[in-house]
Amino acid sequence: MIIKPVLPIKYVFNEIKVSLLVVLLIVLVTDIPVIFFSHHYTEIPLTIPTTLGIAISILISFKVNQSYDRWWEARKIWGAIVNDSRTLVMQLKMYTETDCPMIKTMALRQIAWCYSLGQSLRGQDPFDNLKGLIPEEELKKLLSQNNVPLGILDLQTDSLKELYDEGKLDKFSRLQLEETMERLTASMGKCERIKNTVFPTTYRKGLHLAIYLFVIFLSLTEPLNLSIFIEVPVLVILSMVFFFLEKAAFRLQDPFENRPTDTPVTSISRTIDINIKQLIGETDLPKPIEPKDFYIM
Amino acid sequence: MIIKPVLPIKYVFNEIKVSLLVVLLIVLVTDIPVIFFSHHYTEIPLTIPTTLGIAISILISFKVNQSYDRWWEARKIWGAIVNDSRTLVMQLKMYTETDCPMIKTMALRQIAWCYSLGQSLRGQDPFDNLKGLIPEEELKKLLSQNNVPLGILDLQTDSLKELYDEGKLDKFSRLQLEETMERLTASMGKCERIKNTVFPTTYRKGLHLAIYLFVIFLSLTEPLNLSIFIEVPVLVILSMVFFFLEKAAFRLQDPFENRPTDTPVTSISRTIDINIKQLIGETDLPKPIEPKDFYIM
Amino acid sequence: MIIKPVLPIKYVFNEIKVSLLVVLLIVLVTDIPVIFFSHHYTEIPLTIPTTLGIAISILISFKVNQSYDRWWEARKIWGAIVNDSRTLVMQLKMYTETDCPMIKTMALRQIAWCYSLGQSLRGQDPFDNLKGLIPEEELKKLLSQNNVPLGILDLQTDSLKELYDEGKLDKFSRLQLEETMERLTASMGKCERIKNTVFPTTYRKGLHLAIYLFVIFLSLTEPLNLSIFIEVPVLVILSMVFFFLEKAAFRLQDPFENRPTDTPVTSISRTIDINIKQLIGETDLPKPIEPKDFYIM
Amino acid sequence: MIIKPVLPIKYVFNEIKVSLLVVLLIVLVTDIPVIFFSHHYTEIPLTIPTTLGIAISILISFKVNQSYDRWWEARKIWGAIVNDSRTLVMQLKMYTETDCPMIKTMALRQIAWCYSLGQSLRGQDPFDNLKGLIPEEELKKLLSQNNVPLGILDLQTDSLKELYDEGKLDKFSRLQLEETMERLTASMGKCERIKNTVFPTTYRKGLHLAIYLFVIFLSLTEPLNLSIFIEVPVLVILSMVFFFLEKAAFRLQDPFENRPTDTPVTSISRTIDINIKQLIGETDLPKPIEPKDFYIM
Amino acid sequence: MIIKPVLPIKYVFNEIKVSLLVVLLIVLVTDIPVIFFSHHYTEIPLTIPTTLGIAISILISFKVNQSYDRWWEARKIWGAIVNDSRTLVMQLKMYTETDCPMIKTMALRQIAWCYSLGQSLRGQDPFDNLKGLIPEEELKKLLSQNNVPLGILDLQTDSLKELYDEGKLDKFSRLQLEETMERLTASMGKCERIKNTVFPTTYRKGLHLAIYLFVIFLSLTEPLNLSIFIEVPVLVILSMVFFFLEKAAFRLQDPFENRPTDTPVTSISRTIDINIKQLIGETDLPKPIEPKDFYIM
Repeated sequence: MIIKPVLPIKYVFNEIKVSLLVVLLIVLVTDIPVIFFSHHYTEIPLTIPTTLGIAISILISFKVNQSYDRWWEARKIWGAIVNDSRTLVMQLKMYTETDCPMIKTMALRQIAWCYSLGQSLRGQDPFDNLKGLIPEEELKKLLSQNNVPLGILDLQTDSLKELYDEGKLDKFSRLQLEETMERLTASMGKCERIKNTVFPTTYRKGLHLAIYLFVIFLSLTEPLNLSIFIEVPVLVILSMVFFFLEKAAFRLQDPFENRPTDTPVTSISRTIDINIKQLIGETDLPKPIEPKDFYIM
Repeated sequence: MIIKPVLPIKYVFNEIKVSLLVVLLIVLVTDIPVIFFSHHYTEIPLTIPTTLGIAISILISFKVNQSYDRWWEARKIWGAIVNDSRTLVMQLKMYTETDCPMIKTMALRQIAWCYSLGQSLRGQDPFDNLKGLIPEEELKKLLSQNNVPLGILDLQTDSLKELYDEGKLDKFSRLQLEETMERLTASMGKCERIKNTVFPTTYRKGLHLAIYLFVIFLSLTEPLNLSIFIEVPVLVILSMVFFFLEKAAFRLQDPFENRPTDTPVTSISRTIDINIKQLIGETDLPKPIEPKDFYIM
Repeated sequence: MIIKPVLPIKYVFNEIKVSLLVVLLIVLVTDIPVIFFSHHYTEIPLTIPTTLGIAISILISFKVNQSYDRWWEARKIWGAIVNDSRTLVMQLKMYTETDCPMIKTMALRQIAWCYSLGQSLRGQDPFDNLKGLIPEEELKKLLSQNNVPLGILDLQTDSLKELYDEGKLDKFSRLQLEETMERLTASMGKCERIKNTVFPTTYRKGLHLAIYLFVIFLSLTEPLNLSIFIEVPVLVILSMVFFFLEKAAFRLQDPFENRPTDTPVTSISRTIDINIKQLIGETDLPKPIEPKDFYIM
Repeated sequence: MIIKPVLPIKYVFNEIKVSLLVVLLIVLVTDIPVIFFSHHYTEIPLTIPTTLGIAISILISFKVNQSYDRWWEARKIWGAIVNDSRTLVMQLKMYTETDCPMIKTMALRQIAWCYSLGQSLRGQDPFDNLKGLIPEEELKKLLSQNNVPLGILDLQTDSLKELYDEGKLDKFSRLQLEETMERLTASMGKCERIKNTVFPTTYRKGLHLAIYLFVIFLSLTEPLNLSIFIEVPVLVILSMVFFFLEKAAFRLQDPFENRPTDTPVTSISRTIDINIKQLIGETDLPKPIEPKDFYIM
Repeated sequence: MIIKPVLPIKYVFNEIKVSLLVVLLIVLVTDIPVIFFSHHYTEIPLTIPTTLGIAISILISFKVNQSYDRWWEARKIWGAIVNDSRTLVMQLKMYTETDCPMIKTMALRQIAWCYSLGQSLRGQDPFDNLKGLIPEEELKKLLSQNNVPLGILDLQTDSLKELYDEGKLDKFSRLQLEETMERLTASMGKCERIKNTVFPTTYRKGLHLAIYLFVIFLSLTEPLNLSIFIEVPVLVILSMVFFFLEKAAFRLQDPFENRPTDTPVTSISRTIDINIKQLIGETDLPKPIEPKDFYIM
């Protein structure tokens, strides 16, 4: 998540450099006749690119809208994960004996699940950060699993069953805990849905095409046949505003890609880490994740 | 679901070829007087098609919006089917004895239901992929059913009743399983609603008409009486952007049509297949569905 | 619900004939001076009607949006009615003895409720189609009721109470059935809300006025002082696109008016009819509703 | 709620008279130099007010959208109140003995609550219509309460407790009734939220300012320096369309203000009145609320 | 929450003063050549800034939309807090003995939680207003907590456990109270989500840039080369409308910043204070929060 209001130039430049190159190329090609013959072969009325420009604005606005919704939905899901993780530990404390060792085991495993889910959504190593949270032998078992967070959830379910079979949990309390586990599973499923569903690409192609057409037509319009030293920057700046907004929307639409615009799952997991450890009376708490430069992961 | 950012030209061409032909015809007819008499019989001010162009953008934007919502809703429903299918099997494992043979029977039948629902939504053979998942005699019974997935769900309910009558399931656990079954039935109903509800066609007709008017008026405007070798490509490209975006929206709005833009129900069913078989300890797992060319079904 | 992509000309004409007449009148009046004096008394710059045209597009887009939402909500409610009607019968079968005669009585009455609700929402005779579904004596009692579907629901509740009092239903199962009944009552209430809530008329008036102003100003603009044989069709076609879209939205916003654009409640009720009769083992099934011409009711 | 498609001129005029006056003043002031010197001191290009006009349309469209959502939410809440009030009485009938006198007491009190909530939301006397529904002594107690509907709900809760303490209601049935009461309390809270939350005024100010600027710039543009007898009506009509739409949105956004555009809470309460009295077998039913002129309260 | 329809000039000026300065600077720089050489070095056609103006309107409209949604969501969450706080106390009264001293303790602590949550969301001292609501010794314990409202909720949970362990609460009633507590915890989590999630800044930067470009291009267009005494105010007023609307949206998007546009959490907490104290029969009630100038906190 980007947290600073001012973005580094380098970041902005990286986001738009490909489009910038294409636009410069277009302007160059369309303006070669101007340089050699002092006029275009043809002249397109200014209203054509103007109309295209408005159409592009409308379409970008739609895209920003839908991308924002995806991003906000991802954030809501992780908000629910925070709540349900805390609830799980609080319910365990309430329903079992105070000195039950399973509370700590499950609490630490819940922290591990959060880290692991965040990492695997981003395509990173899902075993990162798990040291000290899950015993060595369980870690070995998880190595053979494709979906590590799902494996951790399974271990949680097994522990619940164990508690119930040993009579440390009554039927009614088990139900409450199961419902919390179900909500956590559903949250994981929702994250996977967002991660695995490609935002309709046909739409994006149409939009890109429209912006390039906008640049071509605009560079061919008569009234813009000003000095070429004025025309080029005007064209470049205008199209870059469009491309930057489109790119900003594009970044929002995929919130688990290990990029600065991601939902800050590592930072949220750390918060859960601290909260849960406080709940079970640990005193050696980790520090909150620090922002990197202008963003937080 | 289209997964590649670059679409094959052939696919794009197929999507717009009819509109392309009509537009070419319009341009030809309106430009015949230009060719023979060097001028139009009449000239329409450029602001008229410009206004139409903006109006069309606004209307397409609305359509993309609603179509996207239908598509996203379809995806959410299938996300819920994934979750509830897994939950059904996990609940069966938790509430019955470990060696109960019904667990495997119902688990495989649940996989069959997913495949069958996906196929019948797409108007394909609902018995595809069912071999080995449902015993021969049950398959025969299903042959007489109009709605095969509904028939499979009925079999699941019967099995639940059997388990309960034989005392292998207590009242409370039955309720939990019934609620899962209810959610699965509701998801099926929602898919059928999306499949059977025609997106308002009046609206689409109005939009198409507007795009054709846009082309006619634009080709009759004075300032565009450039060389006909410039005018024709400009007109065609502009209208094709509109038609392509409209078509992209049209594809999204019907997500169960056995087309590349479909919700990837076969692929999702296969994921459920693999997950459930892992849950019941099977080792002979099918492979995930491979993308075909630029899309995945 | 309109199901054919191509609408009959007659239907489209009927939808816009009043507006068409008014527009023709406006054009005639504003062009009389042109005919007699070869020029308008005054000339309005083209940008004025252009701006109005864009404003109208934005407002129509909003209206289509809200109308579509109402229409889609109506469809969702009837989707829930399908699900809950089936569930009611399945729950009855599961919770009572197999040979309990009340199952059939309540199942048929549930079908009757669907037909009756559809009819009364459309302001049609609510006793249509009820023959054979409800016994004569109950029909007589219903005659004195204002709200027939509500009366039928009451009969269902009475039957449930009877089953419970006779000990054929335990407390727990009664609760499940009551919850299904509650959802059906809520669906009825939602349909009535949509039916009885007039879409804000002030808004529609403002929009109509704007379209007429658009026509007036456009016909008074200088650059359009083309031959009157060109100007009139351009004006008429442009305004008709607006009026047709507005009308299409208007039709969607009231989905229970016994018109081709209605939510197809009769057809949905017939589906429920067939499904429920199959569930209780009837073999004499009615046929699905056939589409009439280009739509289905 | 306005129910007639045609609004009385007087009503429309009242809605826009202030803005009309300001606009006339603006036109007068900006046109004084035209009258005396036959030309403006300055001339603004027409594109400036045109752009402003489009911007205003977009902003009004947003506002209509949000206002409509508030209005529709208010209507949904009252739809839920209808359902839950009926449910409350039906549950009472089902869970208690048929001759229990509390049924009638609580049913009438529920009607009273609806009337009282509607009145107090509109800032009217909350004791209106309560005669015959609540006994005199209870009315006296309510006089000392700030929030009368909340006081009535408290009386309902007390009655439930009484029924339970006297053993006329079992634990399980009490829970069901409590849940219905909870939903009614939540609906009241939601109405109060809509009533007490001022729609962001900063936004409205910006919009008004933009419309006035639109009028000023439009009256200063060169191409509109037509005869002043044409310019003034064009300006006034155009701006009045904007102001009327903005006002229409403004009216929708506050649905409990005792105005014709209100959610028709009195009429809905009367429907509840009739329904509940029928449910408890009363025969002396009140008449439905008649529309006043072009609206219903 | 701003409650007065007319805003003080000073407030409006403060909101836009930075942008105003930048715009004045831009106008100055671009107009220096006009002053010294009576003409611009270059002239940009008016359609360019016009198109930008429309694009900006569309993007602002999107932003107002999303910001309004955040603001409205925050208001809904606090509406739920009001309901659940009242419900908690009413449930305590219903499920425990009338003279149980824990009722008052927990009721006052609930009030304290609301004040404390509001304060800590705004980054103010979370111990403000807590005097008399929480005993001294508990306050001391809370001092060591990072998250004070979470600490207060923990105290509530402990009290519930105590009541249950002492046999003053049965299993069933405890569940009801726990569910209320869970909803309160979820509401707190949602507030924190809104507070901690930065609205995408990339988007805002793009919008600001576009407005500045709009001013630059507009000041360089030929037709606006009027007297500089006309051009400057036109430019400044136009851009200020954009900046003011953008700022209004910006203010809405962060509703817990201790600013006049905040969700009025102090005022809502006071209402809860009064309501709960009335419910437990206190007579010494605090006064409602008075609006400060044009807003209420």
